[in-house]
Amino acid sequence: MNMQTNLSQLEVGYDIPAAIGMPEAEIQTPCLVVDLDAFERNVAKMQKFADEMGVRLRVHGKMHKSADAALYQIEQGAIGVCCQKVSEAESFARNGVKDVLVSNQVTDPKKIDRLAQLPKIARTLVCVDDLDNVQHLSEAAQRHGTEIEVLVEIDCGAGRCGVQHGEPVLALAKAIDAAPGLTFAGLQAYQGAAQHVHDFQERKAKIDAAIDQVRGTVDLLQQNGLTCAIVGGAGTGSYYFEGNSGVYNELQCGSYAFMDADYQRVLDETGNHISEFENALFILSTVMSHAKADKAICDAGLKAQSVDSGLPYVFGRDDVEYIKCSDEHGVISDPQGHLKINDKVKLVPGHIDPTCNVHDWYVGVRGGKVEQIWPITARGKAY
Amino acid sequence: MNMQTNLSQLEVGYDIPAAIGMPEAEIQTPCLVVDLDAFERNVAKMQKFADEMGVRLRVHGKMHKSADAALYQIEQGAIGVCCQKVSEAESFARNGVKDVLVSNQVTDPKKIDRLAQLPKIARTLVCVDDLDNVQHLSEAAQRHGTEIEVLVEIDCGAGRCGVQHGEPVLALAKAIDAAPGLTFAGLQAYQGAAQHVHDFQERKAKIDAAIDQVRGTVDLLQQNGLTCAIVGGAGTGSYYFEGNSGVYNELQCGSYAFMDADYQRVLDETGNHISEFENALFILSTVMSHAKADKAICDAGLKAQSVDSGLPYVFGRDDVEYIKCSDEHGVISDPQGHLKINDKVKLVPGHIDPTCNVHDWYVGVRGGKVEQIWPITARGKAY
Repeated sequence: MNMQTNLSQLEVGYDIPAAIGMPEAEIQTPCLVVDLDAFERNVAKMQKFADEMGVRLRVHGKMHKSADAALYQIEQGAIGVCCQKVSEAESFARNGVKDVLVSNQVTDPKKIDRLAQLPKIARTLVCVDDLDNVQHLSEAAQRHGTEIEVLVEIDCGAGRCGVQHGEPVLALAKAIDAAPGLTFAGLQAYQGAAQHVHDFQERKAKIDAAIDQVRGTVDLLQQNGLTCAIVGGAGTGSYYFEGNSGVYNELQCGSYAFMDADYQRVLDETGNHISEFENALFILSTVMSHAKADKAICDAGLKAQSVDSGLPYVFGRDDVEYIKCSDEHGVISDPQGHLKINDKVKLVPGHIDPTCNVHDWYVGVRGGKVEQIWPITARGKAY
Repeated sequence: MNMQTNLSQLEVGYDIPAAIGMPEAEIQTPCLVVDLDAFERNVAKMQKFADEMGVRLRVHGKMHKSADAALYQIEQGAIGVCCQKVSEAESFARNGVKDVLVSNQVTDPKKIDRLAQLPKIARTLVCVDDLDNVQHLSEAAQRHGTEIEVLVEIDCGAGRCGVQHGEPVLALAKAIDAAPGLTFAGLQAYQGAAQHVHDFQERKAKIDAAIDQVRGTVDLLQQNGLTCAIVGGAGTGSYYFEGNSGVYNELQCGSYAFMDADYQRVLDETGNHISEFENALFILSTVMSHAKADKAICDAGLKAQSVDSGLPYVFGRDDVEYIKCSDEHGVISDPQGHLKINDKVKLVPGHIDPTCNVHDWYVGVRGGKVEQIWPITARGKAY
């Protein structure tokens, strides 16, 4: 993919954890390993769902922050990416993604100025929830001679950014529609607080409430001559609700491509984990101490993952358990002493997004060999 | 400092959050800001404590991962650094640190091979808790014609790596002493589980127990003709116990230089926070939404910090409170509506080490202006 030609200049073990063609066993740890077969199956499955529901899939690039992964998803049918920061959007656009939504507010003057230049290389969309912000975006777009597409963000239950549905949206939409350099493009309505609700009915109730708010607002805007080209939102935990709503037309799922331990606890109507997306992303880790008979110490701690949604689990094994995480170490309970020094374990992280954000590389494996190495192009692009 | 000459080639807002000379208000967020005055006072204070106790200070580079910060600490009297990974050690050595202890086990064959080459550019020390590992290190040192100094790690209560005190240490020390290419250098005895015990007496009891084990082991080794040139350990939460023990001679403190919210909860005998090290490191963050009257949404979420030890607090303010953290956002309770869009807040992270590890830069400020920009040279050096 896009950056592999430079890999040969990098030092394995210092700059980069692996080399193309290397046996999986020689990968330097801790690092992120992508099971390419599972990743590709996940991507195909979600694309099929979106196609069947007749909605567009705009994949969330904030999850993997990788231009390589995004371009693969686009090849398979996604229309583009969403992401959360201007520098992240720049990173995707500079690496070949032609359609980028910043599904967030951009208010800092320098960031607005950067965003307003982005339409020169990619379709650029952003969200607003503040009237002054509309004016600032408009001024910047005019200054650079560009056009920014703007969505009004509704807070449909997450309690973060976004205005309330109905009239507050209409006021903003009218301002956008009237602002030179801006195009009113529709609604951003992501119910982030519902994605990780494990129970199906409870999750459905939250999303149904959001859908009702969105439908009413779309109608109100229509009555005022404002058409929503985009009604966007949804995530891995809820996409089938929004996708089948008849009102949303763009899904913004991210985690389905890699999956994590917490999303596996999110259940569908039948009690299985949602849509049976597969674990495609692992923290590969090595046992580096076993001085206690019943404990293996591995090299993946807090600097190899985020534990905000719980500890990782050891993939494919029920004889050992990751029980404690400190800065540089994971403590694995190994009551039968099965693990030995230098054994590898694959950990499924508790929460994928902030875990990917601490690594610089994805090592893509297939058939026991390293096939791809993707730089995490937007890692650290937090501004 | 060492890498500033290249900064001008970097794009502010994409590659880097600030430029030298920039007013603090224009720094792009979220990013890490170092209060240089406070940092320098912390460094001076700990160095003075070590000097007064007659022990060496080997600062823990795993905390800040910055060659610039380490070289400053060394200029002020520290003898070198410790760190936790081979690539991290390489990073410090390649950036000018001449004395590097990997205070951890190195067992992977490729990592051992890299470690064995490091003495060509810096004094190199490592820890062991396994007999086979001694042989592997010896073979690699001989292969490269180098000498590695080796400490035996004692598990003095942390329950991670390390052998039990007494005879198991003696067996390993004898093997190291007999191994070509290796020098027996002493003991690594870090009681990691005691550092964050908030209560003074409870913390003292844990460290006193560790000191007793270490003292007994040093005596046992001495009776067997093995002298410990280094007896190392201690952290910001315990350094005065080990430093005054008469048996430890190298302190490995890290967090004191920046401090964090959790270490501020660690109390001394008088009920004040330990040694009154100052907050020198902040996550600078910007309010980017205030669509709800009582909530400000800032741009520092899980990708700007680690929340394993709790949420950050807003520095210098008691009218607002950081109450929730999601991937890209922090929710700040602002009941009186004091914060406005684009206002800046300084957050004190819950846990400094894994927070620093998600950022690429430290922006050093003094008198309201950016004075230094330090790359986090060992960020991502996890292998």
